[in-house]
Amino acid sequence: MARWESGARDRLQGAALELFAANGFDGTTVAEIAAAAGLTERTFFRHFTDKREVLFTGQEAFEQVFITGLAATTDDEPMSIITAALRSAATFFPEDRRRWSRVRQQVIDAHEALRERELLKLSSLAAALTTALSARGVDSTSAALAAETGVTVFRTAFAAWIAPGETRSLAALQDTVMERLHTLVAPL
Amino acid sequence: MARWESGARDRLQGAALELFAANGFDGTTVAEIAAAAGLTERTFFRHFTDKREVLFTGQEAFEQVFITGLAATTDDEPMSIITAALRSAATFFPEDRRRWSRVRQQVIDAHEALRERELLKLSSLAAALTTALSARGVDSTSAALAAETGVTVFRTAFAAWIAPGETRSLAALQDTVMERLHTLVAPL
Repeated sequence: MARWESGARDRLQGAALELFAANGFDGTTVAEIAAAAGLTERTFFRHFTDKREVLFTGQEAFEQVFITGLAATTDDEPMSIITAALRSAATFFPEDRRRWSRVRQQVIDAHEALRERELLKLSSLAAALTTALSARGVDSTSAALAAETGVTVFRTAFAAWIAPGETRSLAALQDTVMERLHTLVAPL
Repeated sequence: MARWESGARDRLQGAALELFAANGFDGTTVAEIAAAAGLTERTFFRHFTDKREVLFTGQEAFEQVFITGLAATTDDEPMSIITAALRSAATFFPEDRRRWSRVRQQVIDAHEALRERELLKLSSLAAALTTALSARGVDSTSAALAAETGVTVFRTAFAAWIAPGETRSLAALQDTVMERLHTLVAPL
């Protein structure tokens, strides 16, 4: 990448998100994104295959941060292993990412195809966690159940994290949601 | 509907599923489905708006059977309310539906756009359950968490129900999965 393009990717992402939020995903063109970032369409396509990828780039890294946490714990209990994965995942969403995440979610919520894509991403995450738990000897039902439950805790905490006015960290919110889950399931 | 068309809908669904399973969803045309059912394309389009609807028809009834169970219980605990919804849902999947459900899932699993559609259906169910729990005075985090957890239990039990050789009822499998969830979450 040429030196003058340094930061191009971030500038394109920032410009795209602002335009999506203002004019809708369908109401924004790649030409407009590139122009708003002071770059060419050709540069855009060196960084992203299409408009949608601006919102979904980094999915591998997103899954990997869960798997890294899972691999690092020596715990045996499936939900303790999942808790370790969630703690690792929280590092992927530091404070300075909250505003981006908040606007990104608004753009996705307003567009059915993007919502479907986001659901597929979380479903892929659950499948990856199931596979990783199974590889540690957890039976298939417990692996699937613990993985799906972990994704539910992540989603619930993440929705709270990007809610207007929320200031607690994602890690703290995940702990709160996990405790709540325990309270809900305990009386069964 | 004309008398001679009685059963047309079921015949079209049966023919479509066989063709999807044999030739893939994209490899099957409405003309072929109609011909296999001994009916015209015009008749097909009186019953379904498109090919995909053959697989996703009845979504309202599917959601409603959960909501009916939820509305009927006098329990206060969110997860007990969800359990009542799951018991009601199990009546929607009697033994004679298992083979259809099994083949339908194979068709869906083989096609990304159909998988996305199925995920959206379950996400819509979770939203409906969240709304219904909130309307009963459950706080928003507990409502979302209990609803998502209920959908996870349903999905896990449903996957077991349609697994090759499985003979237990969906209701029995849901109870087993719910117990397993309790065992997983209890040590936290």
